[in-house]
Amino acid sequence: MLKLHFAPNSRAGRIVWLLEELGLEYELNKMAFHPKDLKSEEHRRRHPLGRVPVLDDGDVSIYESGAIVEYVMARYGDGGLKPAVDAPEFPEYLQWFHYCEGMVMPPINTIMVHSVLLPPDRRNPETLAQAQRLLGRAVAPVDAALEGREYLIGDFSAADIMLGHSLFMANRLGQVSDDLANLKGYVKRLEDRPAFQTAINL
Amino acid sequence: MLKLHFAPNSRAGRIVWLLEELGLEYELNKMAFHPKDLKSEEHRRRHPLGRVPVLDDGDVSIYESGAIVEYVMARYGDGGLKPAVDAPEFPEYLQWFHYCEGMVMPPINTIMVHSVLLPPDRRNPETLAQAQRLLGRAVAPVDAALEGREYLIGDFSAADIMLGHSLFMANRLGQVSDDLANLKGYVKRLEDRPAFQTAINL
Repeated sequence: MLKLHFAPNSRAGRIVWLLEELGLEYELNKMAFHPKDLKSEEHRRRHPLGRVPVLDDGDVSIYESGAIVEYVMARYGDGGLKPAVDAPEFPEYLQWFHYCEGMVMPPINTIMVHSVLLPPDRRNPETLAQAQRLLGRAVAPVDAALEGREYLIGDFSAADIMLGHSLFMANRLGQVSDDLANLKGYVKRLEDRPAFQTAINL
Repeated sequence: MLKLHFAPNSRAGRIVWLLEELGLEYELNKMAFHPKDLKSEEHRRRHPLGRVPVLDDGDVSIYESGAIVEYVMARYGDGGLKPAVDAPEFPEYLQWFHYCEGMVMPPINTIMVHSVLLPPDRRNPETLAQAQRLLGRAVAPVDAALEGREYLIGDFSAADIMLGHSLFMANRLGQVSDDLANLKGYVKRLEDRPAFQTAINL
């Protein structure tokens, strides 16, 4: 059976969400989002830097949320949550899937580090402000793409699990302006999905 | 014909490298890595934030280097540079493909910003040092994975184009220690490939 190494408030939520959307069975190793679990010797054997998610599947052990999403869909997804290669939605599916880690997560990580994770005396207000500006610029094109659409490429897809999860985080950090009405509505629709609820409440 | 919007010393080099490895024809729009080109109205119509690469293919226009690599391989790659879904190398192919933007590029971007792009009085030495430590930790597992291997999954693949390109950048920034002999040799092998040479000398 698939076994997911998980911690709350991390990219591991994406994998729970995916597995729930696909209706796959899995075993969960729920750790605390804390060095005592993530930086333990045991977990560092799974991921040398002590990150989550990590997925085990028999002899296979794999990390990086985008890689795990692609892996699960390719081996167990039965063609779901992804347009066919010759479908008109295929290019934008790929674009938004990769836009998540390429454009949105780097400033989110910086904001987390300089507003939550570092002790207050080591936080840098200018670095924080730069990241907030960059994140604001990065989410604007997604708001435009969502005009008249329920999800990123129309129907719900794994691009929503990747980029949608990061936009949920951006919104929770207070970084999605009320002016971005498409984006606000989109995050709300994601939050209403039962599979997302399961992932986020673990 | 495929048309690539390109600037030197950017992720656009990955796409030239891929197209050359696959022997595909393409047209090149070579811009300067400078706001006068990248932030021009014309280029912002292609990418709202003025980034490269952007690929045009008839009516299709797509950005994000990882997305473009997947797109070109899926529609024009004839199964090359990627293991089959049921191959044993498939999970690690995906893992290293995504490790590029997930783990290696964020600290590289920070290092670039705080050692090259910002004016000296706005660079933050502590932010720079944090990014250098993170990058050092991020490349170590790749050195370990390369033990006894010529490329990341054995044979050359698109994972080398993604992660290999970022390791080439890390090395050029002086962030790959001589102790990481596997990684040093690997970057040298990448640099020796004619398709890489074409991409990097544009």
